Amino acid sequence: MTEFIPAGTRYHALPSPFPFKRGGALHGAHVAYETWGTLDAQAANAILLVTGLSPDAHAAANAGNPAPGWWEAMLGPGKPIDTDRWFVVCVNSLGSCKGSTGPASIDPDTGALYRLGFPELSIEDGARAAVEVVRALGISELACVIGNSMGGMTALAVLLLHPGIARSHINISGSAQALPFSIAIRSLQREAIRLDPKWDAGRYSDDSYPESGMRMARKLGVITYRSALEWDGRFGRVRLDSDQTDEDPFGLEFQVESYLEGHARRFVRFFDPNCYLYLSRSMDWFDLAEYADGDVLAGLASIKVGKALAIGANTDILFPVQQQQQIADGLRAGGADAQFIGLDSPQGHDAFLVDFARFGPAVGDFLATL
Amino acid sequence: MTEFIPAGTRYHALPSPFPFKRGGALHGAHVAYETWGTLDAQAANAILLVTGLSPDAHAAANAGNPAPGWWEAMLGPGKPIDTDRWFVVCVNSLGSCKGSTGPASIDPDTGALYRLGFPELSIEDGARAAVEVVRALGISELACVIGNSMGGMTALAVLLLHPGIARSHINISGSAQALPFSIAIRSLQREAIRLDPKWDAGRYSDDSYPESGMRMARKLGVITYRSALEWDGRFGRVRLDSDQTDEDPFGLEFQVESYLEGHARRFVRFFDPNCYLYLSRSMDWFDLAEYADGDVLAGLASIKVGKALAIGANTDILFPVQQQQQIADGLRAGGADAQFIGLDSPQGHDAFLVDFARFGPAVGDFLATL
Repeated sequence: MTEFIPAGTRYHALPSPFPFKRGGALHGAHVAYETWGTLDAQAANAILLVTGLSPDAHAAANAGNPAPGWWEAMLGPGKPIDTDRWFVVCVNSLGSCKGSTGPASIDPDTGALYRLGFPELSIEDGARAAVEVVRALGISELACVIGNSMGGMTALAVLLLHPGIARSHINISGSAQALPFSIAIRSLQREAIRLDPKWDAGRYSDDSYPESGMRMARKLGVITYRSALEWDGRFGRVRLDSDQTDEDPFGLEFQVESYLEGHARRFVRFFDPNCYLYLSRSMDWFDLAEYADGDVLAGLASIKVGKALAIGANTDILFPVQQQQQIADGLRAGGADAQFIGLDSPQGHDAFLVDFARFGPAVGDFLATL
Repeated sequence: MTEFIPAGTRYHALPSPFPFKRGGALHGAHVAYETWGTLDAQAANAILLVTGLSPDAHAAANAGNPAPGWWEAMLGPGKPIDTDRWFVVCVNSLGSCKGSTGPASIDPDTGALYRLGFPELSIEDGARAAVEVVRALGISELACVIGNSMGGMTALAVLLLHPGIARSHINISGSAQALPFSIAIRSLQREAIRLDPKWDAGRYSDDSYPESGMRMARKLGVITYRSALEWDGRFGRVRLDSDQTDEDPFGLEFQVESYLEGHARRFVRFFDPNCYLYLSRSMDWFDLAEYADGDVLAGLASIKVGKALAIGANTDILFPVQQQQQIADGLRAGGADAQFIGLDSPQGHDAFLVDFARFGPAVGDFLATL
């Protein structure tokens, strides 16, 4: 399995065994992470950043790796997450293929890749793994835990499972429980991979790889990560220059189709299909209501954090802003000074990765009050 | 190819050759249709109904077939489309597999199925075929042309290509041009079918059938036909009774997944994959702006019709209500007494098939003013 791990990534060995919420355990596992800024003498200026499904730990350029990261505009000296002030730790999700142990890693018990032998992964397992890194860095209390998308779920699990671990929280385009529309989308993405004969119950290789399934899954992802509104302005009905050919009468014709194809091409071989399945399913399972007799607001209210910001894009169809509103309401019911902001970004769920003009000030202003 | 044609369907032979907008022609083709009510002596009480992608011509029970139709609640004596007053003709779309000639029909030139040898189908071809039926029934002017979803496009083409053919128009969850989000969804549905090795460039059989591709396409359709809001209330996070099995660790777990699976099962073998591809692509191509130097409102304004109603569901993500608003605005600019109604149906694009409490009065009240 080809893994794409950024240069300069650091690793933290997890306790062995590292038991999973739903049973099973990892042995000799590790978590990849990167840091920015300097931890102060009291270890009081630390921020933990947990990510969406696909990003690695390289959120921005740093000493170990000067290449721009996936959140370059948000993180660095003088940026909204100002590394002149904050010491930031970004953890690659447990179960990913970007450095942390996951289904594409070697199982030390067998010497072969875990594949579907990896234990059933929950968001909570990733949260506990991230906290292991925080503890190992000598941080007993975070100034803030920030999570985007799936990371918004992870961040809530961090706070719930480790009371007192953070003074504040920023939840960006996250949710406290997966809802049926999002479950349906992700279920279909997983089905596309599983239906590809080359997936072969997880036993694919680089030579026999579920390329079609991954392409479908990614395109469906990109469609739901963005918004119809943005695409109207961006693509309209513009056609590709090249005409359709007789050889492929149902081939690409519109710019929007070519855009999806480009996104798929840049993803298919850069993310491990089994890791994708595990992380995707962990989101469907996540539900804070489980901790409060089926009441998600009560689950949120059981989290103790001083101050919180839940933000999202009003055009998000995958993690709709009602879910961020719910997070703010629930945390407030638990005693937090919690604020919700629905931003008018046209870019849907992906807005936090591109609309820095709106997300930057929202995050920066919140951190400035700490 | 298994075709599922309702009992009592009637057929009208199209002129032969029947040329297509983008080139090519059909020979010996026909269109399936059904009727309700009685045409009055002046042939002045006729309504043409054109449909979405998948329905047949059996919109409701009638003399030829007492089985309930797909719009049973809307069409019949005393119903919103009151067949005590109106003579209604519903036409199965040209290119469908429900009785009208399409890619799953025999090409008389070869004696074999058309498959991908069927000429490139446009919405406008279906519109012209529907009008042939209207003319053959002795109707020179329709009281109203009603189109749902894809049929909303077809109805606009009927009006544009045949000035004076109808005194009024009801456009339900339709659009005057396909926009990139909808194109992206349909492109992905077509890709799912085309990627299935059993599609085999259209040369499948009942024994080797692109079942997986059709299942994916249908599930993606159902996801985008409905709305997140409806599903929150309907499914929540309810799980299936049966536990997941070790044999299928990523199998169905939530009710919403089982719902999609059920929909797919009822569709996969009941609609021809090549017909699906042709009809789906015809929607992407449809654009009234083509007729007015790229200005879709001017294209709509070039349609002459006395009175119009454009309605849709505020939760529709596939044919968003802005598109029905646009239809009303454009027809009004062309001189029509045109009204737009955005209904608060939670069921998204499919609302017109289920939310009769809202769509029934809207349609019935409009027809009562004629």
